[in-house]
Amino acid sequence: MHNSADSAFRQTLLEQLPAEVLRDAESRYREEPRGRWQGKVGVLAAPRSTQEVAHLVRLAADARVPILPYGGGTGLVGGQVMPEGPAPLMISLERMNSIRAVYPQENVLICDAGAILADVQQAAADAGRLFPLSLAAQGSARIGGNLATNAGGTGVLRYGNARDLCLGLEAVLPDGQIWHGLKRLRKDNSGYDLRHLLIGSEGTLGIITAAALKLSPQPAHMGTAVLVVSSPQAALSLLALARAQLGELVSAFELISGQGLAFLRETLPDVRQPFDTAPAWSVLIEVGLVHGLDPQKSLETLFAAAMQAGLVEDGIVAQSHQQAAEFWSVREHIPQANKRIGSISSHDISLPLGVLPEFIERGDKLVQALGDFRINCFGHVGDGNLHYNVFPAKGRSVADHANQRMEVQRVVHDLVHAFGGSVSAEHGVGRLKVDDLERYGDPAKLAAMRAIKAALDPLGIMNPGAVLKTVPSAVQQT
Amino acid sequence: MHNSADSAFRQTLLEQLPAEVLRDAESRYREEPRGRWQGKVGVLAAPRSTQEVAHLVRLAADARVPILPYGGGTGLVGGQVMPEGPAPLMISLERMNSIRAVYPQENVLICDAGAILADVQQAAADAGRLFPLSLAAQGSARIGGNLATNAGGTGVLRYGNARDLCLGLEAVLPDGQIWHGLKRLRKDNSGYDLRHLLIGSEGTLGIITAAALKLSPQPAHMGTAVLVVSSPQAALSLLALARAQLGELVSAFELISGQGLAFLRETLPDVRQPFDTAPAWSVLIEVGLVHGLDPQKSLETLFAAAMQAGLVEDGIVAQSHQQAAEFWSVREHIPQANKRIGSISSHDISLPLGVLPEFIERGDKLVQALGDFRINCFGHVGDGNLHYNVFPAKGRSVADHANQRMEVQRVVHDLVHAFGGSVSAEHGVGRLKVDDLERYGDPAKLAAMRAIKAALDPLGIMNPGAVLKTVPSAVQQT
Repeated sequence: MHNSADSAFRQTLLEQLPAEVLRDAESRYREEPRGRWQGKVGVLAAPRSTQEVAHLVRLAADARVPILPYGGGTGLVGGQVMPEGPAPLMISLERMNSIRAVYPQENVLICDAGAILADVQQAAADAGRLFPLSLAAQGSARIGGNLATNAGGTGVLRYGNARDLCLGLEAVLPDGQIWHGLKRLRKDNSGYDLRHLLIGSEGTLGIITAAALKLSPQPAHMGTAVLVVSSPQAALSLLALARAQLGELVSAFELISGQGLAFLRETLPDVRQPFDTAPAWSVLIEVGLVHGLDPQKSLETLFAAAMQAGLVEDGIVAQSHQQAAEFWSVREHIPQANKRIGSISSHDISLPLGVLPEFIERGDKLVQALGDFRINCFGHVGDGNLHYNVFPAKGRSVADHANQRMEVQRVVHDLVHAFGGSVSAEHGVGRLKVDDLERYGDPAKLAAMRAIKAALDPLGIMNPGAVLKTVPSAVQQT
Repeated sequence: MHNSADSAFRQTLLEQLPAEVLRDAESRYREEPRGRWQGKVGVLAAPRSTQEVAHLVRLAADARVPILPYGGGTGLVGGQVMPEGPAPLMISLERMNSIRAVYPQENVLICDAGAILADVQQAAADAGRLFPLSLAAQGSARIGGNLATNAGGTGVLRYGNARDLCLGLEAVLPDGQIWHGLKRLRKDNSGYDLRHLLIGSEGTLGIITAAALKLSPQPAHMGTAVLVVSSPQAALSLLALARAQLGELVSAFELISGQGLAFLRETLPDVRQPFDTAPAWSVLIEVGLVHGLDPQKSLETLFAAAMQAGLVEDGIVAQSHQQAAEFWSVREHIPQANKRIGSISSHDISLPLGVLPEFIERGDKLVQALGDFRINCFGHVGDGNLHYNVFPAKGRSVADHANQRMEVQRVVHDLVHAFGGSVSAEHGVGRLKVDDLERYGDPAKLAAMRAIKAALDPLGIMNPGAVLKTVPSAVQQT
């Protein structure tokens, strides 16, 4: 059905494109951060222009060679590795990494899809603006990948997901046509929203080559605090209180569990923690205020009101940038601590805020019933996104529970689904959650997705095996 | 190809559904607010449940009868009237108008698609929250129509378009399947974003039956001012200054032209105007502040800084709710004044902010070159959306220029397109702008739209003739 990007295909490319477009497929292009898969790469191309991307796509379509779009390679669900089937043409956007233009007056930035997220943030800052997408991999993740996977992170509560930060796209569609959609408009109702269809489609409907991004005013003052809450429910009540006082100016609201702090103390003792005794639950809150408001005073007012309401038991409002950075360091090192402990199963889930505390309570019981596990439940609680990760008891290893991974995952995901949540919150579906999508996805939506995939990519060459399991019928018939 | 919803089809419906689902198609269902079209209605159904909607769609599909979804009938581009072809089955959502649930803690509201926008706003306010979609027709527009057309209005600068306020949808797809997608989640990357595809598709890909809407915290204090600016460029510099001082707390930023104020004085002299002599350009600015900020003080600070920067010549900060309401009344009566004067051609356009002043200058010259016209250019300048409307000279009538309408429109739309703008900003494409979409739309995007339409609606029964001209090939072949 599909053919490998073999030496004959490589020869075809070399006849039509400059030799420097092709690169050696070093081993790093076959790997992904969690080490679950080893991918195949037939030919690696690193085009320098949208026209070259389009040319490559047309040649792959002619030869029925699958295409694997590649950004920074930081995805956590295997969307960027193709372990099965014919070896693909990998199209890496790494050389298309320019900031094309910044329009401070418009709060717009246009860049190539291969621009590193941190470089986009910096270009915005240089223009006195904020590009608020913020996530752990920002030093190597590329904006095209962030958009293809609709990345989340810590700024979603205030600024939305990656899709909410995108005004327009340029992309190469599966037939090699270039869609010129780099609009700098806030209102544009001219037909179906192809932008939002490509965003989050994980390279299965086309290759994003450039984006017009929405910038925000930089907050005048930042403030940070860590507050100890009695429970996840108290954390949510604290969030409501914070938003009643400060509205949209609450920038981040992260839940930290005692288990996470214990892992940190065990594996990364140099990371300075705010409390001598790790609280069972605490919240890292960040506010970004406008002129006329004092961040410390605002946070102290919130702290006092939360104490009075019985939501908060203890807390520290950062008195300096350094102290704020220390608080953030705690939050940011938790994934690393998790990695050192070694999880049996990790879950990137989201829930309606109202049911989140009950989910945590019931989830813990169900998981504990399966074995003597440690649970680190933390994350972006302000937007209902938890990283609910399950670890072996102290002294035991992941290997001791190798056969329980699927069982644990099934229990957690079933419960998420029962509560109206999503088992793919911010990381996407990739290859990791294709079965979950089949299991939990709405049948009418899945049917529509398959119809759209078959309509836009009738040859099925764009990142086959990601997101959707079923091969489009149009291809099966050929 | 398609069949009329005739008496035989009516009989089929009566055999399968309760008689009360069908209604008399009074003349108002055939009209649209601008009086350009008279539509046909074969059978009018007003289902009471999503299941009844699905049943109707299946019966129409079986009979190859076109379907015309109907909300509040307030659309300005003819998406809700079908003047040509077989008489359709009109499916009005008017009886599905419940607020299903409000979740204040989650900032979520779920309602039927037939809920009136003002009722949704009120239900949010009753729960101490804000549903920020705000537009002239809110007393009769229904939320399903707002979403199907991705409505805009005055709140877009701060809160986004209708699509940005929607977390999830329930919809009946063209094959009669119900998509259950009423998620209350802020992060959900489980497959293609069918929600954003249906939003803005103007009833051509399915019928929205319910929505999960995003609410916001209510601002603690509102402030309003009218400031006289020397030019549209000064207005934009004022916007930048306001956002530098108050960030996202600037809620509305509306441009008012001297021509608009003159029309108002001429046709609606009872509307009290803020200035004795109508300024050539003024801006209505509204801020919605958090606790700790004083709206009058904040606006006065802005006023003073803008005076000092030479952006503003005069101004009034509202000292009471009543005065603020008077300022808004001026802005809100301008469309009515326009109607009384009678426009030759009206244009709902958007532009990148940076080129907006030059567009106004060049547009005026080009239009004036065509004849002795009066131009009222006003609107949501904060998000780049202008209503650029052209009127006859005083003493002359629209009839005197009947043959110039298309010429004027062409000149304006060509210029918008040349500047990277959109000729369909907030009203949608409907039937009015189908040719514009063909002319100005990106070919790759249009091809993708046609492929998606054919894939999801192979019979072409969903609102045929709206948005897309071309009949899907699947239908042409039958």
